[in-house]
Amino acid sequence: MGYDQMCPRYERAMEVLGKKWTGLILRILMGGPRRFGEFRAQVPDLSERILSERLNELEDEGIVQRMVYDTKPVLIQYQLTEKGQALEPVVATVQQWAERWIAPGGTAPEQP
Amino acid sequence: MGYDQMCPRYERAMEVLGKKWTGLILRILMGGPRRFGEFRAQVPDLSERILSERLNELEDEGIVQRMVYDTKPVLIQYQLTEKGQALEPVVATVQQWAERWIAPGGTAPEQP
Repeated sequence: MGYDQMCPRYERAMEVLGKKWTGLILRILMGGPRRFGEFRAQVPDLSERILSERLNELEDEGIVQRMVYDTKPVLIQYQLTEKGQALEPVVATVQQWAERWIAPGGTAPEQP
Repeated sequence: MGYDQMCPRYERAMEVLGKKWTGLILRILMGGPRRFGEFRAQVPDLSERILSERLNELEDEGIVQRMVYDTKPVLIQYQLTEKGQALEPVVATVQQWAERWIAPGGTAPEQP
């Protein structure tokens, strides 16, 4: 679709992907299935409440699935669905842009 | 950078790009320079206040530049900088994902 027309699908996608922490959660999941505590260990600033809210939203969107393995103790992991895996090019292009245009510490760079 | 390590650049990029309306404003600008009123005509739900807030943020980030042409009447347009143009692959991959995985009306599709 040309960029001169509005696209409700794109708008909806940005709404889902643009939520605070969602991009980061997706990036972590690109590395493979994760337990709840593993997200928290990687992102200490992310509260338990917000993390479960975001994971629930991503589950509702069909992007993440929660897997319960009947082991002792029970193992619960979050993993990307096919729809979630399909976001890899989005995460990769954001990463590439950031590496070129955002300063290492995460601030905006001087114009090169 | 591997997805198992945190990346402050990626986090910062998602913070900039994830703001409500920003993805949409960038998509419109991929079509070329736009006057303030042209954004509003394309996105009636976007208030004047929020639109100028977002354009100012994108200017501060060096993603958008405001051009003033000394014509009569004066022409003011917003256009992408080189850093902003470099976001084209991000907009394109979100668009591709949305076309495959988001239903035409903008709601989440049934699992295919």
